Amino acid sequence: MAEHNTNMRLKLPVMCIVLEVILIILFGAFVEYHPDAHARGWHQYDVNNKTSNPDYENEFYYRYPSFQDVHVMIFIGFGFLMTFLQRYGFSSVGFNFLIASFSLQWATLMQGFLHGMHDSKIEVGVESMINADFCTGSVLISFGAVLGKTSPVQLLVMAIFEVTLFAINEFILLSVFYAKDAGGSMTIHTFGAYFGLMVARVLYRENLEKSKSRSTSVYHSDLFAMIGTIYLWIFWPSFNSAITAHGDDQHRTALNTYYSLAACTLATYAFSALVNHEGKLDMVHIQNAALAGGVAVGTAGEMMLTPFGSMIVGFLAGTISVLGYKYLSPVLESKLKIQDTCGVHNLHGMPGVLGAVVGILTSVAASKEVYGNGLELFKLGDVFEKIQNGRDSSTQAAMQAASLGVTLGMALLGGLIVGLILKLPIYGAPPDTLCYEDAIYWEVSVLSLEKILYAKLHVSYMADVI
Amino acid sequence: MAEHNTNMRLKLPVMCIVLEVILIILFGAFVEYHPDAHARGWHQYDVNNKTSNPDYENEFYYRYPSFQDVHVMIFIGFGFLMTFLQRYGFSSVGFNFLIASFSLQWATLMQGFLHGMHDSKIEVGVESMINADFCTGSVLISFGAVLGKTSPVQLLVMAIFEVTLFAINEFILLSVFYAKDAGGSMTIHTFGAYFGLMVARVLYRENLEKSKSRSTSVYHSDLFAMIGTIYLWIFWPSFNSAITAHGDDQHRTALNTYYSLAACTLATYAFSALVNHEGKLDMVHIQNAALAGGVAVGTAGEMMLTPFGSMIVGFLAGTISVLGYKYLSPVLESKLKIQDTCGVHNLHGMPGVLGAVVGILTSVAASKEVYGNGLELFKLGDVFEKIQNGRDSSTQAAMQAASLGVTLGMALLGGLIVGLILKLPIYGAPPDTLCYEDAIYWEVSVLSLEKILYAKLHVSYMADVI
Amino acid sequence: MAEHNTNMRLKLPVMCIVLEVILIILFGAFVEYHPDAHARGWHQYDVNNKTSNPDYENEFYYRYPSFQDVHVMIFIGFGFLMTFLQRYGFSSVGFNFLIASFSLQWATLMQGFLHGMHDSKIEVGVESMINADFCTGSVLISFGAVLGKTSPVQLLVMAIFEVTLFAINEFILLSVFYAKDAGGSMTIHTFGAYFGLMVARVLYRENLEKSKSRSTSVYHSDLFAMIGTIYLWIFWPSFNSAITAHGDDQHRTALNTYYSLAACTLATYAFSALVNHEGKLDMVHIQNAALAGGVAVGTAGEMMLTPFGSMIVGFLAGTISVLGYKYLSPVLESKLKIQDTCGVHNLHGMPGVLGAVVGILTSVAASKEVYGNGLELFKLGDVFEKIQNGRDSSTQAAMQAASLGVTLGMALLGGLIVGLILKLPIYGAPPDTLCYEDAIYWEVSVLSLEKILYAKLHVSYMADVI
Repeated sequence: MAEHNTNMRLKLPVMCIVLEVILIILFGAFVEYHPDAHARGWHQYDVNNKTSNPDYENEFYYRYPSFQDVHVMIFIGFGFLMTFLQRYGFSSVGFNFLIASFSLQWATLMQGFLHGMHDSKIEVGVESMINADFCTGSVLISFGAVLGKTSPVQLLVMAIFEVTLFAINEFILLSVFYAKDAGGSMTIHTFGAYFGLMVARVLYRENLEKSKSRSTSVYHSDLFAMIGTIYLWIFWPSFNSAITAHGDDQHRTALNTYYSLAACTLATYAFSALVNHEGKLDMVHIQNAALAGGVAVGTAGEMMLTPFGSMIVGFLAGTISVLGYKYLSPVLESKLKIQDTCGVHNLHGMPGVLGAVVGILTSVAASKEVYGNGLELFKLGDVFEKIQNGRDSSTQAAMQAASLGVTLGMALLGGLIVGLILKLPIYGAPPDTLCYEDAIYWEVSVLSLEKILYAKLHVSYMADVI
Repeated sequence: MAEHNTNMRLKLPVMCIVLEVILIILFGAFVEYHPDAHARGWHQYDVNNKTSNPDYENEFYYRYPSFQDVHVMIFIGFGFLMTFLQRYGFSSVGFNFLIASFSLQWATLMQGFLHGMHDSKIEVGVESMINADFCTGSVLISFGAVLGKTSPVQLLVMAIFEVTLFAINEFILLSVFYAKDAGGSMTIHTFGAYFGLMVARVLYRENLEKSKSRSTSVYHSDLFAMIGTIYLWIFWPSFNSAITAHGDDQHRTALNTYYSLAACTLATYAFSALVNHEGKLDMVHIQNAALAGGVAVGTAGEMMLTPFGSMIVGFLAGTISVLGYKYLSPVLESKLKIQDTCGVHNLHGMPGVLGAVVGILTSVAASKEVYGNGLELFKLGDVFEKIQNGRDSSTQAAMQAASLGVTLGMALLGGLIVGLILKLPIYGAPPDTLCYEDAIYWEVSVLSLEKILYAKLHVSYMADVI
Repeated sequence: MAEHNTNMRLKLPVMCIVLEVILIILFGAFVEYHPDAHARGWHQYDVNNKTSNPDYENEFYYRYPSFQDVHVMIFIGFGFLMTFLQRYGFSSVGFNFLIASFSLQWATLMQGFLHGMHDSKIEVGVESMINADFCTGSVLISFGAVLGKTSPVQLLVMAIFEVTLFAINEFILLSVFYAKDAGGSMTIHTFGAYFGLMVARVLYRENLEKSKSRSTSVYHSDLFAMIGTIYLWIFWPSFNSAITAHGDDQHRTALNTYYSLAACTLATYAFSALVNHEGKLDMVHIQNAALAGGVAVGTAGEMMLTPFGSMIVGFLAGTISVLGYKYLSPVLESKLKIQDTCGVHNLHGMPGVLGAVVGILTSVAASKEVYGNGLELFKLGDVFEKIQNGRDSSTQAAMQAASLGVTLGMALLGGLIVGLILKLPIYGAPPDTLCYEDAIYWEVSVLSLEKILYAKLHVSYMADVI
């Protein structure tokens, strides 16, 4: 990167203010409350039906607790997971906070334009909030691939494009192919990972080892990261079930994810110890691979995968994820020149593809015998509504497969183009010597040299530190 | 402060035990389960209606998830937000824990006496828990203004009075003026901030710079504080919607808050970089100003503010909050002698007043056209139930304005009187030289002297750690 | 312990893989979705009743938010609570993660075999997830007693046996005696604590003081631990109410727990300052004793204990817990040779027994007058369904008492036998000199070699910080 004027005093404010003003104008022009959130809309029903619209049927009560769990994953989960770097905690949590806040607004518009318009208005409600957070998750996955090597302005530019492409890809999968992907193995994880990896490829830094001393963790940074990991792990059942159909679908998706993650965790510990010469566990694996089980049931979780099936999938996901960190990531870096800071290929890429494949296989197996009236009685958004409407299960499986292909294509091509845009030397990216360093973009309190030298005078002060 | 005997061995136990005994006696005399939580009460309905009372209509299911989110905000959110000080983490989380535990019990009684009595009993249930937590939030805001300069006994005394005044103010606003203020822009934020600022004014310490070395953050303390910030940010939609009416009201309030906060965050990053000479982001702004968007829609959030309106409000709130931290806080300290440790004026004070004003304006705009049957069909607790009952919207707006005035008056006068009470040299407040210091009130593990003496060799290392 | 080959390269992978394979096979053979989570099952109802089964009656919506709160307690709450040790954060969170992930799967089977079989299948759903997490909680309590002195393989072996015994004990209490114990004062806390204490007794290490330097906290480790504490405290109302009956029962249980904990916190601060010579608060007390109020209403919380009664119980629980830490724990170690790392006797043991006693007393007081139709109208799972069915309240109380006795017997005898099994020198337990040390089982990042060379003077110091 040629440009090393990392001063953000103009770039960042201009970027944020212009973007927010555009967002506000577009929201003013196009966004309206969903009837369930609209004073007139919700109470109007009463009159039409000559009966009061019972409050407990408001969509809010079916989905808001799940939304809040997802919200925790996006802001605490992703944010703290990335604090593992010793000198990049402010940026990890802070840039995560910034780009997520932007992305969820932009995603509301992009997803709305593509598949949420009613009378030329985008209707927002608890479902649109969940979907916007989902799209944001995809951007944060890509962020993980370029963590430490990008400026906040660069990240915002990436988010603008990625959200847009995400919405298009999601539209194709869900509204053209009628594929099922409630937890986003394809739309969120596969897309976010391969998009981010391609961007990282384009932004390859030959001299990144100059920042090597900062590219590892320290003791407390690993503990902060565990906050992110554990929250992601806990709430993943809510993530996968947040927009599945009411009733058995939400219930089953949560169960499947719960078992998949538990099995994945045992696999992660097993293989983490196995691939280490001294049999020691590696925090990188625990922080990441243990989550692969959630990714891998993102497509099939709402289907009749059974707990048995979920555990097998989770176990496989944990296994390939650890092996990926150990054996594949170094190859990606040395051969393919992909410097994947957080190893998103291992946590989101491969497990996402696995999840898509599991979705294909589980779709093939969909039958009247297994789903009973769950296939016959049509209910909007139910698993396999298209099968209910006459599509056979092998066609469904083919559409699932096509969805994986389209997602990979969109992610790689999109990542390539956006990567080239991000390579322009105008965003104030850090120099190779100052990657993974908070102090470029943040006021960081440091002890001045002289204070340290005289630290002996300040016994009580030093006591602080520990 | 004359008294520097900070030994709590008698003061604190006596205070805690006496208070808790009084609480227990008063609870024994006056508190009863709300029918929705009462074995006899809940099942009795069955008989009267000759029909079973469906469990899904129990208030618990409408509000308990929101309550838990609020609960996280009070204990984790506020508690960790204040851990930013390098040597005051135990006190921040720990005193927050203590005074919140006291306040929620005391608030249950005070709010109950004033507007929750049924047959001379206070009925408690999920709504009373939320309201008690809300009142507690106000006390914690004031705590932010005096953080580091007060003893736990002093804080408990402050809480006794502040909770009482809060309940009176809330009674006037909600039950006399029938103002709307579901998220508490006025009752919680404006009241808590100006009350705390006045207390801080009275407790002004001329020689506070003697503790200056401890009044800033260190690297990890800022990360701990971000846990608080992010949780407050995530759950603010639940906070503002926790006691709004069922159905569209809760739904809409959550939406408005979500968008306001997102817009506020972009404004915060923009102005934080803009006001810094090197364009660097300041953790103080990110930790605090990004939350102002939640405060500023605390009154109008339940109204038909629209996402568009919410985003404008959020953007303004973030802007004034950052500018307040940068330009106003130093003036408050130097000219008005208000040492506002956490800058509650910027996070709760000004955004709270902004929220009240937005509430006035949005009330004026309330019309049949916008609210439809939401204004006509009477439902207890609905937005503008008074308008539904014949009050016109400009009267409602006037009542909203009067509420802001009363709140400011109560807060400033109350803060003055309580400040004077707290100035008495009997509470074991810390001396000027030992403010912002955990070791006064807590057992703190320290390094042995000799280890410290040899620490000087590790300059760069040390810099990392802190 | 004779064996100090702590290399886990074979032991841990073999253990994890074998266990997970067995789990998967058993799940494949025995586990099926509960009808509420089963596509065919849920939609079949429609046909039978000639009416659609309303989605809002799916058990998922009654219990999933509570489940998620419990889930946070198990993984974040317990996990971070134990990070208070200066050099054992990875193991605390990480082993907690591992054994909880295993235990919840194993508990699903054990609890299912004993009291969840339908047509020779174990039906899983949101209730089974909560119950499995509860059983896991018991194992984590025992983990607290042996924290820092055990290998992960040893902990997994402990979990295998403890989960099994837990399920048997739970079966006796709930399905033979028809005792009430929704929040698990007996089944979870008393059982987990005394089981763990007995194991700790058998594993007594005479030379444990060789690891003494690592057995205490440092500043930041105490703050991490407070994350665990506060989350446990916040969500305990959800824990105790998670599997109580719908409606008033869940509502009331949450209320009682809320008040008990608040009163307990004031008692904790009072007695923590009182027992310290300088009146300083002790983080150990705050982190633990403040939670005893949740434990102590684990049995009676769903009964008509009243907020008044709950506060008395909470106050007592906090008091005995602090006094236990101060005066009893040293005696247990010196006289009974029980080295109870986390003081689970004070947080779970004594308060658990107190909770059982409160349950007995509250059962005696159960009357038509207090419970009204809540006693008459039979509803499965309601408090005192047996009293509803003719059992008198003193019989109920006797059964509660018998339950406490059986629990203590099972825990102590079980702990003795399992302790002897765990004493075998085959699990790679740490040597006496390296207890409470992450570096045995984890890759721990260290400073660069040259820095380390100069650090040699500060070995133990440096070790802390990183």
